[in-house]
This record gives sequence, C-alpha cells and structure tokens, in this order.
Amino acid sequence: MQKPVLHTLLSPRLLDLYDVDNSIVVIIDVFRATSTIATALYNGAEKVVPVAGVEDCIAIGKKLEAVTAGERDGKIIKGLQHGNSPAEYFREFIEGKTLVLTTTNGTRLLHMALDKGASEVVTGSFPNLSAVSEHLIASKKNVILGCSAWKDRFNLEDTLFAGAVISRIKEHFTIHCDSSLMAEDMYNLHGNNMYAFIRKLTHWHRLSAFGLEKDLEYCVTPNVANVLPVYKDGALVAG
Amino acid sequence: MQKPVLHTLLSPRLLDLYDVDNSIVVIIDVFRATSTIATALYNGAEKVVPVAGVEDCIAIGKKLEAVTAGERDGKIIKGLQHGNSPAEYFREFIEGKTLVLTTTNGTRLLHMALDKGASEVVTGSFPNLSAVSEHLIASKKNVILGCSAWKDRFNLEDTLFAGAVISRIKEHFTIHCDSSLMAEDMYNLHGNNMYAFIRKLTHWHRLSAFGLEKDLEYCVTPNVANVLPVYKDGALVAG
Repeated sequence: MQKPVLHTLLSPRLLDLYDVDNSIVVIIDVFRATSTIATALYNGAEKVVPVAGVEDCIAIGKKLEAVTAGERDGKIIKGLQHGNSPAEYFREFIEGKTLVLTTTNGTRLLHMALDKGASEVVTGSFPNLSAVSEHLIASKKNVILGCSAWKDRFNLEDTLFAGAVISRIKEHFTIHCDSSLMAEDMYNLHGNNMYAFIRKLTHWHRLSAFGLEKDLEYCVTPNVANVLPVYKDGALVAG
Repeated sequence: MQKPVLHTLLSPRLLDLYDVDNSIVVIIDVFRATSTIATALYNGAEKVVPVAGVEDCIAIGKKLEAVTAGERDGKIIKGLQHGNSPAEYFREFIEGKTLVLTTTNGTRLLHMALDKGASEVVTGSFPNLSAVSEHLIASKKNVILGCSAWKDRFNLEDTLFAGAVISRIKEHFTIHCDSSLMAEDMYNLHGNNMYAFIRKLTHWHRLSAFGLEKDLEYCVTPNVANVLPVYKDGALVAG
C-alpha cells in the first residue's frame, strides 16, 4: 500500500500551495494558542471555540455563557476576561466550561484551513505531542503540519514542533519536502536542549518582555497535556 | 554605530513582509540561475539580462544580438538557443557577449525586488560566495538574503547559501530573525558535506532526472566563479 504524504507549511501565506482538501491539517501555534487549547481540554474544558476577532469573541462568549480569552501585545484584550496563558486554565477553573479564544496567528490559520476545505483539523503543540503523533499514524491520511508563524513570518518554535512530530511518525509517510527535512534536522539539533534554545528565538524576545518565561518553557514541554483537540461543529473538543 | 539589519526571505511570497526599499536584496537561486549568472560574468560575459518571460527573451535577444537562454523541465525552451547550465557558459563561448536569460524562480524574484524598490540588487550563489559576502560587509546597509525557492515553496539549497553568507558576515549585522538563525544552523550542519546532502533535496530529484548531477555539484562549490553580479540599467554586470 502506498504511504500517505506529509508536508510542512512554514507560513499561512503558503497554504494554497498544498493539497489542503485531501489532508488532515495540524494547526501549530506553540507560543501559545495551541498549547493553551491542549491544556484547557486536558483539564476538562467542554470545548474551545477559536474565533478570529474580538467582537466575535465577546458575542459568542455571551451566547454560550463561556469564558472569553485573548491578548494583544501580552495584555488581556479589553472586553475579554482572560489571557492566552495555559497556566490560567487549570482544572479547578476550566473543567466543564466552554472557552472562546481569539489569538493573532493560530486562530487565523485554523480558519484558513477550514475555508480551504481541510478534511480534518486538529491542533498540535509540545504539551500534546504524543496524542497528535499517534493520531496521524492511525489515520493513514495525507498530513499538512501547519506552522502558524508570526504575522506570516517563519518562526522556529512551530517548526521545531513539526520536526518533533516528523521524527516520531516519518516511517509511516512519504516525505519529499524540504520544509519537513529542515524541520526534522532542527528538532534533532535542538530537541534535547529546548529550554536553552528558545531563549534565542524572536518570539522569546517579544513575549519574555511580559514576564512569560515559565509559560514559554511549559509550551515546549512534551506530553504534559496529552489530549487530541479535534475541530467539530465549530469547536475544538477532546478527540 | 548601530549595525545594519539582516533578514532571510524564505519564499518570494513573503517579500512584502520586509523593508525592501531600504535594503540590498541578494537574489539566490542556487539550482541554477544565479550560479549560471556568476559563471557567465566570471567568464567574461559583458552582461546578463534577466527577463521574466520567453517572448521577452526572444525579442530582447534579437535587439541586443545576444545569446538567449532558458529551460523548462530540463529542456531548452523552443525559440531560445541555450539552457540554464553554468557549464554552457565557458570563456571561449561567452566572453564579450550578452546573455539574455529566463528562469522559473530567480528571474521572477529579481523583478519583484526591483518592483518593490530595492535600493540595490545583486545575485548570489556558492560559486560567488566570497564576493557577495565581502560586498555586504563593505556596504554597511541593511540586507535581505532572498531565497528564490521553487514556485514559492521553501527549498534548502537557497537556504544553505543564505546560511553560508550569514556564517561569514554575522558579526557585522544585527540579526533578529528566525529564518536566519535556521539558515545558519542548517549550513553549519551540512556545509562540510554538501555533495552528499544535496542528494536528499526535492530539487535534486527534480533535476537529476535530466542527468544534471555534475551541474548541481558545481552549483554548491564555493568561489569557483567569484565575481559580484550587480543589477544596473536593466542588466547584471560584474561589480
């Protein structure tokens, strides 16, 4: 039997170069949207509704009687209740609740993938690395590892997660894709030293100014919220 | 004095994310446009006129009484005289002549950079690695290392050249750019083993089907055609 094909997308801007409608798209936004989504669902949130804009976040939050969350430049957006930190979504707070979340990059790529007819959308981050990897192997479908990037610019934290997935699942896929080759090399080079390496990244400098060092370290720690967020009927739910 | 800023562009599709009009843009198309341009100029071509389309290539070639060249899918385009291989442009043939060249990726990025008002456009490839690196240090201007990619998809051969340049000039620039960090890491990982590594790349499989292995090895050999192609009055000339 022929193996399914895997590609790595390095920027949302390049999405139309790939065969989205025949693929599972893994939305990756390591700092911090997809790490937060995994954490909220792992800690018992009923669902997470990813929305593109602040007004939608407020309106849907009211309608669903949900927790609303979103940040811009490291501060909670006016009119919303919570931020983008996974640390906010501990079990005692989030269990049984719905979270409506707006973020700069991850939410946007997720909606782009849906608009282009992705056959399935899941979210990935180090906290749920194994759950994602095992699901992709079991599905036997084509895969796009979709890095959310930063305002369309390449970033390394999302790429390193793509590399971590590739290193775990590559025997099950056909991979002829320089982006994937690079992602795996970068993960092999830095995967054992992530806490130190992330301090070199552009996004680290952007977020650490807001005192989020512990948050960012959590976001590159494998399997501490090992659940599979699957998009279904307008929300991400534990698969 | 503040150091100038260096960025690496991974796909032409992302060009507008960078401050093109305050930068020297280095056009990189390792397989094979910019390797061929360096080789032709090194071997005494008067100039190389990069054109976007085949019709322009024929018309301008006739007007300038020039050599016309271009390939698609590894074959010389109907109506043109020569291909994209650097091996075709040895001194006895090209000295004193004008070459009008159309290619899939490099030519296109070059015209995009001009359209966006780049303050200077030069071309880079391993055969002229030192000439480019020394020019960038001496210029003391902001730099965009522009990978031409393959139909907008990321490729590693252009990225490795960007990494080679960065490893030589980084002390002279401010670099806060994950693309550049990645490019340098990839070059440090594979720079000593390029002939073997290029056999893993997507583009190798595309071109080696046409029997171009020796060509591709030449294209990753440093400083064998060490000239600086600078865009001036519609053509690339030895700077």
